[in-house]
Amino acid sequence: MAKPTVLHIADVPLVPELQNEFIAKFEHYYIWEQKDRGRFFQEKGSLIKGIVTDTKGWVNKELLQNLPNVEIVSSYSVGLDKVDLGLCKERGIVVTNTPDVLTDCTADTALALLLACMRQIPAAHRYVCEGKWPIHGDFPYTTKVSGKRVGVVGLGRIGAAIAKRCEGFGCKISYYARSKKSDYPHYSYYNNVVELAKNSDILIAACALTKETTKIINREVLDALGPKGYVVNIARGPVMDEAELVKALVEKRLAGAGLDVFVNEPEVPKELLDMDNVVLQPHVGSATVETRTEMATLVVRNLIAHFSGQPLLTPVDM
Amino acid sequence: MAKPTVLHIADVPLVPELQNEFIAKFEHYYIWEQKDRGRFFQEKGSLIKGIVTDTKGWVNKELLQNLPNVEIVSSYSVGLDKVDLGLCKERGIVVTNTPDVLTDCTADTALALLLACMRQIPAAHRYVCEGKWPIHGDFPYTTKVSGKRVGVVGLGRIGAAIAKRCEGFGCKISYYARSKKSDYPHYSYYNNVVELAKNSDILIAACALTKETTKIINREVLDALGPKGYVVNIARGPVMDEAELVKALVEKRLAGAGLDVFVNEPEVPKELLDMDNVVLQPHVGSATVETRTEMATLVVRNLIAHFSGQPLLTPVDM
Repeated sequence: MAKPTVLHIADVPLVPELQNEFIAKFEHYYIWEQKDRGRFFQEKGSLIKGIVTDTKGWVNKELLQNLPNVEIVSSYSVGLDKVDLGLCKERGIVVTNTPDVLTDCTADTALALLLACMRQIPAAHRYVCEGKWPIHGDFPYTTKVSGKRVGVVGLGRIGAAIAKRCEGFGCKISYYARSKKSDYPHYSYYNNVVELAKNSDILIAACALTKETTKIINREVLDALGPKGYVVNIARGPVMDEAELVKALVEKRLAGAGLDVFVNEPEVPKELLDMDNVVLQPHVGSATVETRTEMATLVVRNLIAHFSGQPLLTPVDM
Repeated sequence: MAKPTVLHIADVPLVPELQNEFIAKFEHYYIWEQKDRGRFFQEKGSLIKGIVTDTKGWVNKELLQNLPNVEIVSSYSVGLDKVDLGLCKERGIVVTNTPDVLTDCTADTALALLLACMRQIPAAHRYVCEGKWPIHGDFPYTTKVSGKRVGVVGLGRIGAAIAKRCEGFGCKISYYARSKKSDYPHYSYYNNVVELAKNSDILIAACALTKETTKIINREVLDALGPKGYVVNIARGPVMDEAELVKALVEKRLAGAGLDVFVNEPEVPKELLDMDNVVLQPHVGSATVETRTEMATLVVRNLIAHFSGQPLLTPVDM
């Protein structure tokens, strides 16, 4: 039997332990190596049975119309905002992602950003490294984190992991979600993000990006948070109205922000690049050696399972 | 009755709400305004009844021999390593510090440093700010924090607060202390720092600086932690053998470090200034507006209590 053919539309790094097995079990094409895409799709499109993608690769109508026989999309991510799940369902294409294994590191990134922007860790680090401490004396006082009111937008796996970490800091937890979660009776539920922001010192975006959550953190929410409020985003750039966020920071209608994701990655609004109260990360949410190894393993194991008729490890419910 | 005279040997910032009361109740001298110290002590030394200090001011034999009538030392700090407690006791001088109120922020600083050095937050922030993300692509993978084995050196108020926060990250907690603490049966106790380091991925110094804890984290401890291990110090610089720490980092016998305190503050070993795996803070442990306000309030309230015959708020047990 011919080996199934997989198209990589994102450069997912494979762990060395799996690389040989993966190469042996599948034919591979890498989309970035195809100079003449039209010809490639014409010649090979109907052979492609699987797609490997990540947070950057679009699996949409434009791509799928060239690939009539795709059976599975295996994504190296938990978020699937660039995968057209409706179209996949219509076409009978199964989709897998990498939930759970990246929850811890992404929640850690949220806490790192929260502490780093409120306590100005990169600015204070630069202060030491640039030799300013002996010359200018003590670094200006920053803002206390412990005990503050944290509002989590989206209490899924990652949101709940963030909340749990914040509890260790004595923070009072509130959240917005489409519905009240019975697992978290000790957290305050708001069915409205503006109300959540009014009752929070820190707002953390941890929701999936969907039509409903696009710009869910808008000007009204930022103004409800107010000039002493902080925002952290480890979800996806477009859940924030980024232009309004920039304005609020420039006009000091917001105290600070910790951002791992942006609307037009890898582009970052230039107004944010030299603010001591803003900490920027290059979408590193889950980017540790340990977690990326587990994610890459899931990407491969799902493909192997599918083509050998075994149950998928982490199918997306569609 | 004449107002008691207080000598400030450190520039403790007073909160505006207390400043008037403090000024009204006490005569003040600021040691840094006295150009001719010998003459100052000769003329005013016997008037001084109280001393205000912080982590930087030495209250030792050299100072106290000039101040025969001091009754109280009120320190804007929890650590008293620069106050000669034995001599104070001998002379019947009471000492107050600012415990509890700074526990949260100092523990927050430990977590901020831990996350910042393992996840390379300042380096990744610089990567974005310097425009490298669009040119060089993804930032290199870093090291997972959650679930790691944390060893706390000194399980006092601050050490316990650090451990509690680390529990929220699913970390396994062990500690070294002079004796096993019955309040923490779920943490593993080691009566030996080398053994603690052998069984930890991350070692966090949170002990008071005493003769016994000077260089308690020495070469043997660092080598027991090993090339995948991280060190965080929010205690005092001299609890580390700083020269050995620098060597271990330069020779890559240690994976990274997060340091808020140094042996010769504000001087920092220059070898540490450009390492992406090392995060440096200018002794900001408790330096937030909220906590410094509470600390300054305690400094003043203790002086007022003493000179009005009321019980001290936070006396040091000597």
